[in-house]
Amino acid sequence: MPELRKDPVVGRWVIISTERGKRPSDFGRFETPRREGFCPFCPGNESKTPPEVYADRDPGTPRDGPGWHVRVVSNKFPALQIEGELRRRGEGMYDKMNGVGAHEVIVETTQHELETSELPIEQLERVILALRERMSDLAKDKRFRYIQVFKNHGEAAGASLEHGHTQLIATPIIPRRVVEEIHGCTQHFEQKERCIFCDIVDQEMDTSTRIVCQNEDFIVLEPFAARFPFETWVLPRLHEPFFEMMPRSSVHTLALIFREMLVRMNIALNRPPYNYVLHTAPSNDWEQPHHYHWHIELMPKLTKVAGFEWGTGFYINPTPPEEAAAYLREVVLPPAPIQTPGGQDRPVVPVR
Amino acid sequence: MPELRKDPVVGRWVIISTERGKRPSDFGRFETPRREGFCPFCPGNESKTPPEVYADRDPGTPRDGPGWHVRVVSNKFPALQIEGELRRRGEGMYDKMNGVGAHEVIVETTQHELETSELPIEQLERVILALRERMSDLAKDKRFRYIQVFKNHGEAAGASLEHGHTQLIATPIIPRRVVEEIHGCTQHFEQKERCIFCDIVDQEMDTSTRIVCQNEDFIVLEPFAARFPFETWVLPRLHEPFFEMMPRSSVHTLALIFREMLVRMNIALNRPPYNYVLHTAPSNDWEQPHHYHWHIELMPKLTKVAGFEWGTGFYINPTPPEEAAAYLREVVLPPAPIQTPGGQDRPVVPVR
Repeated sequence: MPELRKDPVVGRWVIISTERGKRPSDFGRFETPRREGFCPFCPGNESKTPPEVYADRDPGTPRDGPGWHVRVVSNKFPALQIEGELRRRGEGMYDKMNGVGAHEVIVETTQHELETSELPIEQLERVILALRERMSDLAKDKRFRYIQVFKNHGEAAGASLEHGHTQLIATPIIPRRVVEEIHGCTQHFEQKERCIFCDIVDQEMDTSTRIVCQNEDFIVLEPFAARFPFETWVLPRLHEPFFEMMPRSSVHTLALIFREMLVRMNIALNRPPYNYVLHTAPSNDWEQPHHYHWHIELMPKLTKVAGFEWGTGFYINPTPPEEAAAYLREVVLPPAPIQTPGGQDRPVVPVR
Repeated sequence: MPELRKDPVVGRWVIISTERGKRPSDFGRFETPRREGFCPFCPGNESKTPPEVYADRDPGTPRDGPGWHVRVVSNKFPALQIEGELRRRGEGMYDKMNGVGAHEVIVETTQHELETSELPIEQLERVILALRERMSDLAKDKRFRYIQVFKNHGEAAGASLEHGHTQLIATPIIPRRVVEEIHGCTQHFEQKERCIFCDIVDQEMDTSTRIVCQNEDFIVLEPFAARFPFETWVLPRLHEPFFEMMPRSSVHTLALIFREMLVRMNIALNRPPYNYVLHTAPSNDWEQPHHYHWHIELMPKLTKVAGFEWGTGFYINPTPPEEAAAYLREVVLPPAPIQTPGGQDRPVVPVR
């Protein structure tokens, strides 16, 4: 059973794998293993993954067989384990608990070679709906306080399998970073009775220098205090704490803006490795989170985080967000992909 | 002039280079440029760096010429600029100030090819004394609230030059991570009237499972809630908030334990890239910091930080610190290096 341990000084929790720890010789530092041939996420190989916990599949096709469009399975090497109780306990002055949680993989497509931005809009919608479904389901488990959705694309961004997938980890504590954001939102609300993210959306739309693109429901911007070059956020224009509460109509506009953001980044930066994370209000915490405002943070992996950043939590960003936004706006988008029969695809149009 | 900008939600400051931002084409992602031939830190090339701000040099040798043992110069491409006032100001709802600060490079040795652990003990002492000197000097500048000492070794850890060097950045704000540690120390002190790091030292010496090595003044341990595999801390055994206040006798014992730690890591992990950072009480803040306890955090670069960590500040560590400590303890140390004439070298002896 993995362990959750709390740093006694700063209160940060970490997940420690205690099963079979990685030995010094497991850290091969120069090899970047190229997986070839077999892919557990390709259709026909469903039996090589843990059983599916959700699938968007054609009617009549069997569970754990082909016929799916999006498939969600437990991670074969989970960071946290689904069974068991938390058993919070001490070890002298230290605090720990069992590493209970869920770790799932959302396989985004049957087509091994497609990167997320190459998916048809209706397929991206299926992915968003699958995430919504899994988040609503996991929120029912009272042991979990937060569900973190994230994606690692490319080896430099920590991906270990090539086939397009998103992951989620349900944790028994609210992660520090989210607690800090909620705290900031609450403070701002107490002072101004407004959501701070709504204020950000307003100011950014007024000045527009950091806006990359937008549609009726979302804006894509480079944040004022971006930690990384080309760090990019997607924000709903209307206040909404919970990703899962997004109106059905926004699933389509989110798919459109999300794909446009990735296409612009891939063209401007020559298909970089990247991570994105979804920040949403904690599913089981109905007290504070109405001041929160869900959003997505995309971080292309362009620089190396070095000692100064690790030591201080203080980032040095060599690209001003205003310039990054201008580069991304100037990207000439390719013609819209061919309409998928039955799909709701429409051309991707830049804002300015 | 670089800019310091504050994230309005979580209050984290970032340094934004506004001079000439890195363009998309500047982020070559696959090339790892191999510098060959010319090295600005080698003796004889002193004129190729900014003028020295400190040097430990042989009597009678000229400033910015050969004859030095340790040399400190301003960084040629500084993250912050030394001239100017802070000019704190707003931009709508956002806060920013001028990127005023110092960014210096401590060249650790004249010998290009030596890694820090290969330096003679007396040379390591010179490096420690140079750091102490620069920190005391920069603390007199009232614009600076903190001096962050750090090292990047190896390209994967963000080093851009091979010749052994440590860096420091003096910042006009106390970095978030240090503020959090001071806050944790203060809270613990208010509850127990004891330093939390002293309590950690006591508990770790009692249980000893996470201790790597020790001498009369320092212990080296794997922290209970290590974020990274083989994350390793050096702590003074006696309470001392300020690195600069270290007694002169501890300079020698620090050099010994620090070298032993690096030697053990290099043998166990096959000379990995690494970062280390020095955490010390803010030099210009004489109110709270007596509850702080300076220490060094060493982080070999063995894993890639991925989306989950970026999104949550919640780390997954695949190597339990108890196992890492055992591996490091089991390392068979090479025979002590030959005594340098006039040096105070003595053999490195493992504790257990």
